[in-house]
Amino acid sequence: MDQLVKPADTAVEAVRAALKETFGDRLQTGATLCEQHANTATGRGTQPPDMVVYPETTQEVATIARLCHAHCVPLIPFGAGSSLEGQLNAPCGGVSIDMMKMDTIKEINPEDLIAVVGPGITRKRLNTELRHTGLQFPIDPGADASIGGMCATRASGTNAVRYGTMAENVLSLEAVMADGTVIRTGSRAVKSAAGYDLTRLLIGSEGTLGIITEVTLRLRGIPEETIGGVAGFPDLDSAVAAVIIMVQIGLDVGRVELLDPTQIRACNAYSNLTLPEVPTLFFECTGTDAAARDTARLFAEIAEEQGAQSIEWTAAREARNKLWQARHDSYWAALALRPGCKGLVSDACVPISELAANITAARDDLEARGLIGTILGHVGDGNFHVVLMTDPEDSAEAEHVEAFLKGITQRAQACGGTCTGEHGIGQGKIASLADEAGASLGVMQAVKAALDPRNILNPGKMFAVAGQGA
Amino acid sequence: MDQLVKPADTAVEAVRAALKETFGDRLQTGATLCEQHANTATGRGTQPPDMVVYPETTQEVATIARLCHAHCVPLIPFGAGSSLEGQLNAPCGGVSIDMMKMDTIKEINPEDLIAVVGPGITRKRLNTELRHTGLQFPIDPGADASIGGMCATRASGTNAVRYGTMAENVLSLEAVMADGTVIRTGSRAVKSAAGYDLTRLLIGSEGTLGIITEVTLRLRGIPEETIGGVAGFPDLDSAVAAVIIMVQIGLDVGRVELLDPTQIRACNAYSNLTLPEVPTLFFECTGTDAAARDTARLFAEIAEEQGAQSIEWTAAREARNKLWQARHDSYWAALALRPGCKGLVSDACVPISELAANITAARDDLEARGLIGTILGHVGDGNFHVVLMTDPEDSAEAEHVEAFLKGITQRAQACGGTCTGEHGIGQGKIASLADEAGASLGVMQAVKAALDPRNILNPGKMFAVAGQGA
Repeated sequence: MDQLVKPADTAVEAVRAALKETFGDRLQTGATLCEQHANTATGRGTQPPDMVVYPETTQEVATIARLCHAHCVPLIPFGAGSSLEGQLNAPCGGVSIDMMKMDTIKEINPEDLIAVVGPGITRKRLNTELRHTGLQFPIDPGADASIGGMCATRASGTNAVRYGTMAENVLSLEAVMADGTVIRTGSRAVKSAAGYDLTRLLIGSEGTLGIITEVTLRLRGIPEETIGGVAGFPDLDSAVAAVIIMVQIGLDVGRVELLDPTQIRACNAYSNLTLPEVPTLFFECTGTDAAARDTARLFAEIAEEQGAQSIEWTAAREARNKLWQARHDSYWAALALRPGCKGLVSDACVPISELAANITAARDDLEARGLIGTILGHVGDGNFHVVLMTDPEDSAEAEHVEAFLKGITQRAQACGGTCTGEHGIGQGKIASLADEAGASLGVMQAVKAALDPRNILNPGKMFAVAGQGA
Repeated sequence: MDQLVKPADTAVEAVRAALKETFGDRLQTGATLCEQHANTATGRGTQPPDMVVYPETTQEVATIARLCHAHCVPLIPFGAGSSLEGQLNAPCGGVSIDMMKMDTIKEINPEDLIAVVGPGITRKRLNTELRHTGLQFPIDPGADASIGGMCATRASGTNAVRYGTMAENVLSLEAVMADGTVIRTGSRAVKSAAGYDLTRLLIGSEGTLGIITEVTLRLRGIPEETIGGVAGFPDLDSAVAAVIIMVQIGLDVGRVELLDPTQIRACNAYSNLTLPEVPTLFFECTGTDAAARDTARLFAEIAEEQGAQSIEWTAAREARNKLWQARHDSYWAALALRPGCKGLVSDACVPISELAANITAARDDLEARGLIGTILGHVGDGNFHVVLMTDPEDSAEAEHVEAFLKGITQRAQACGGTCTGEHGIGQGKIASLADEAGASLGVMQAVKAALDPRNILNPGKMFAVAGQGA
């Protein structure tokens, strides 16, 4: 990334002065606030922006973009700050544009199953507001991320096997482009063949192509019935085999998550559960009352055929919520296994037939290197994570961690998978994307150069571009 | 489109001579063949290419692209020829690249639910080859289109309400870009957050950004049970209301199609049915045995609450196939209502709450103008079509047809919908896209200019670009 060029101090000062005049106290330059707006969830160091600005309207975002564009000063969109690959760091300084004040729900339309929201609303607050409608926005990446940030990183999570990722659940975006142009990428119709799919081009672009200022979301009816359960298996292969069969016969499972024995041990301790410490599937079947029951029954049959020793049903809402809360708290549960440690989460997605082999290889490598970690996966999608508990002071361990993460990526890519299923590229996986994308990296770079010729939008992320500046 | 510039005769001749040398008899210049490769399904005239070439490998496609790029000669990808908006016309002449020899199935992987195919295979042949696997490729636009063409136009059809469009069912593309670079846009994993979504950028780009040379498709298990039926309603509003409720409560219907009384009359005559000539829903519920039955029962309850007079069940495969064959033949059935006529099909997609009003307005306008047409819709998606039976010799009628089609588009756009749900832009809807896209049209044009700076890929389609040629 040595081609990253910081803007001239005079340019940054000109932007600061102009923003101060327009935004008053909604422009902040304090060191602590700036550091909070740089992402530190990764192992890498914090690279704070020069200032943080809080727009409240699309037109304000456009004003900020025009100013940064004129002065070639970086502009980094910030949501809930829950991204994991350094997406929010500011290696060239510049302006962090905090979108969290743009958090209104502009419309909930139960007839069309649409919500129109500002990018700053978090998914939990949105679902709270939807609670009396019988509708939900099902995409659930674990963290209480902002909807704008979830768009920008193409988030998914436990419900993706049933409802898809953000790419399948956004109808249209309003966005401010690098030069301040405001565009709308789609309509309120659930499908369209009208021109290039700019919605999907912006989703997953990690703030490098435009700043999302409004999101038209697709809502879903909450199914009549949800029946969940826990199944313990003698080994990893049999747990994964059960899921493969389920996917193959077209069984619509709502969620199906794999947790390895170490993760189960962590969850038992942290969330006060008493599950056997074996490879375990958490699953949920949804639908009409009869459909959910029938699907659950079939899934249980498949699991038993694959050797599941115990299936514990959780039809009651409280038991189910307790189970899935434990799943969501699995990161914190894992960290509690090694007090004082720092957590690092890997992310790879592979064809499902390769999942057991990839997870086994990760487990073996973990043990060979003497690292401490748990493994869990959105197994219906072939997406899995290793939560590493690392000692940030131990440099020998840090080398092992780096090699371990590289191994995860390389094995995933070698078997036809991808270096990231849902966390994105950010700063952490620039080299991995280059390996994976091959000649298509040049196409991405050409699109970036066409839409942000001055490279002001979140520079230093996703891939190297020709030198910053006009 | 007056900025469209034909290439110099010498350039075309240079390309012809070079292709002849490389491809021999796989290069053809006969007038009839060239005319067959220009699209005539629209009302507009045929604009034939100068030649047709039949590549058999990706490297041959790259050779052709490099040659056309060097000489600034247009290159128009051709599949089954079933597109409806003039996507295959060659307003500047050039080379039609017929992809139908690249029709191999390279891999069917039942474990990962993946098929890797050449772009020239048709969806029916693919499903025939899949028949012993228990898997299907469900996207069904009616015509026996090629998979490559379905990608290029973002096709969908009757199954989209359950399985989504091509955008949701392609994992990765191999494509040859304008300068001959070969890229791969994705992996074999079912989801990814690795860089810009070039798969979705190419899907729906109508051959203007790249030539698709290989498609990695997502397959689906054939559900255990399918229960279908026909429900007749007292009026359009009640039929649509039943579907809205179904969507809102999250009922997973496999297919649900609306046919207006004129279309039912046409189908009765053409397909030997005896359905009451009222607004009618064809529907299909799928899942496990119990799930399909339960869903169908619930759907029937909703339909009856909305006033459905008669529900005829078609659990038996033959009855169901007869019904859906009639639906697929509805275009031909409609044409048979006016022997000797030419068919023209509109395409708009609206928020479902606006569907009844849009269809009613279309019906009223049809009657006011004295035009003959039937209305049908993929009603779960808000997508509807009017099949017009026109007399190509009658110029007064032609003016009414144009105004009628314009009205369909304008009403759809005015209520938050789109001018095309699945047929695309081609030549027919360039003005409509410009109206609908607003400032985002400039983003599309910038992407096009970045990836095809000489405008050789399917020029004159989708939108106007700066003058052709380097």
